Amino acid sequence: LLERAGALLEQLRFSSTPVVVTNSRILGLHGTILLPALEKKFGPSPVIVVGDGERHKNLAALSRVYDGLFRAHADRRSWIIAFGGGVVGDLAGFAAATFMRGIPYVHIPTTLLAQVDSSIGGKVGVNLELGKNLVGAFHQPRAVLSDTATLRTLASRELASGLYEVIKCAAIKSESLFSYLESQLPSILACKRQALEHVILEASRIKAEVVSSDELENRQRMILNFGHTVGHALEAATDYRRFKHGEAVAWGMIAAVGFGEAIGITATEVVSRIVRLIHRVTRLPSLNGLSLTALRAAMGRDKKFQSGRIRMVLLRRLGEAEIRDDIDPARLRSYLKKFLAHPGQF
Amino acid sequence: LLERAGALLEQLRFSSTPVVVTNSRILGLHGTILLPALEKKFGPSPVIVVGDGERHKNLAALSRVYDGLFRAHADRRSWIIAFGGGVVGDLAGFAAATFMRGIPYVHIPTTLLAQVDSSIGGKVGVNLELGKNLVGAFHQPRAVLSDTATLRTLASRELASGLYEVIKCAAIKSESLFSYLESQLPSILACKRQALEHVILEASRIKAEVVSSDELENRQRMILNFGHTVGHALEAATDYRRFKHGEAVAWGMIAAVGFGEAIGITATEVVSRIVRLIHRVTRLPSLNGLSLTALRAAMGRDKKFQSGRIRMVLLRRLGEAEIRDDIDPARLRSYLKKFLAHPGQF
Repeated sequence: LLERAGALLEQLRFSSTPVVVTNSRILGLHGTILLPALEKKFGPSPVIVVGDGERHKNLAALSRVYDGLFRAHADRRSWIIAFGGGVVGDLAGFAAATFMRGIPYVHIPTTLLAQVDSSIGGKVGVNLELGKNLVGAFHQPRAVLSDTATLRTLASRELASGLYEVIKCAAIKSESLFSYLESQLPSILACKRQALEHVILEASRIKAEVVSSDELENRQRMILNFGHTVGHALEAATDYRRFKHGEAVAWGMIAAVGFGEAIGITATEVVSRIVRLIHRVTRLPSLNGLSLTALRAAMGRDKKFQSGRIRMVLLRRLGEAEIRDDIDPARLRSYLKKFLAHPGQF
Repeated sequence: LLERAGALLEQLRFSSTPVVVTNSRILGLHGTILLPALEKKFGPSPVIVVGDGERHKNLAALSRVYDGLFRAHADRRSWIIAFGGGVVGDLAGFAAATFMRGIPYVHIPTTLLAQVDSSIGGKVGVNLELGKNLVGAFHQPRAVLSDTATLRTLASRELASGLYEVIKCAAIKSESLFSYLESQLPSILACKRQALEHVILEASRIKAEVVSSDELENRQRMILNFGHTVGHALEAATDYRRFKHGEAVAWGMIAAVGFGEAIGITATEVVSRIVRLIHRVTRLPSLNGLSLTALRAAMGRDKKFQSGRIRMVLLRRLGEAEIRDDIDPARLRSYLKKFLAHPGQF
């Protein structure tokens, strides 16, 4: 797709040259394919290079993107190509949402996580020093070009991290995708193009459907937070250092189905299929040393918690999730205590 | 209205306490009225104090507002009250547009310009060092409370600056408001409540109607830029120091009707009514020393200019404006040369 990006994006009929926002690693790996493809159709594109990694998703980097846009003579007719993973997408997407009160953008995601999750749904934004994703907008990309070829340069842990989000999509919305993952996991982990294409398309379709039904996340979109209640807490309690986002969500899903089983909502067979598939992907970073106290402190900071009640997405069966607002904090606490002590049992 | 703000805003049925964003001058002048009124209905409101003046409408101030919101434990159910003039409104409104991907806000504008212009229409944002209003969003306030009592503490030049925008509204959309301004100007300048209320309501209504028809400024909203083509150029050419925004727009309107007359669109009688009313308000800062070259350089930077064509709003008659995209740059140049040399003749 990168080679055909110019021809594909020409169909969107923008009247100007795109400005590419990317990081130096992606530029080095894939720039020599994308930039000439764009040049053929749009002329030479200005490139704004941002730092690589979550710690660069902040207001300082955003300010540099704005300056870059101005110096590239961007105006209201301009458009942005976010070329990279979730950090580049969130940052460049938020710059697009706000530069001159909003210009269009296209995302060319280069990680599996970005292809199946962050590039779909229009959530863009940056972190504050005080907390993650506190500043942002809903700004839908005009197109997402997911090229499986870019995944071949991905570290295996990055690939796995994206795959956990695919498992999440399947768990909440599609038993058939879940079965596909169970049977085709080796091909996916080997980056076989056909298998990757299938899961990326299916996960994107599921996420797009959920988002379309509730773009601004009033309720139904929260179903995508399956595994995220405990997942976010694990990330926060370890200062976002031990787990990649998908890995934390993987543990979070294991906790959610285990808890669902404990309160009689999730069937034992569902729990074991979920847990087995997750553990087949690769070895997750351990939960060693994580206390309930640390987790609770982190959960209290999470914006998903409101006025003391705890909201959680639980699984009724494979492909069917429900948002519960009535989680008894004491029951969740006692479950999590056991879970943290013996995660292997769950 | 300030005294009744709690009761009035209670009708919006927010489920939480507002966070007030204001500057120290406004807080000192009117805080002792507003804050107790809010406290009666919502409990004590956290107050975030920002700097006074356009140079504080930047990303650094925005970052401090975000931090203040976080420290005030603001979440997705929170709402902001922007209490002050255009700078506070633009900054707090943009913070509201982007904090946690958007929370509601209410504006309590304390200048005439903010009451009739910047508080209506949802344009919020901040300046970059490289240029004004380059970053922003469209985010409509849930309510605007314009209390004429706050205008009594306004410097006369500030009052005049707002009045020029009222004249603009009348010129493009309402001959009856224009006639009212002609007959009631002394009462307005003396801050008589009834006269102020009438013009604020009428100007707000006109602006709200125009914005409702074209919120994202694809075309029709540009009619509000009457006087702004030359006005923005005058502001930029003098580094935003010589003219207040309304004053620059006043000169811009004089130039626009004069040019309209020169190319046979605006009737001489319309020109003289506009020019006479503007000059009756107060003495405008002079155009001395402003060259056509400086103006042209500034106009080239203006985002309203696209690909060499010049767009201008011209007046057909009082209450009827039209957006023209076919302005001959050479003709405008030769007109402006004469205009700058002898502005008194126009």
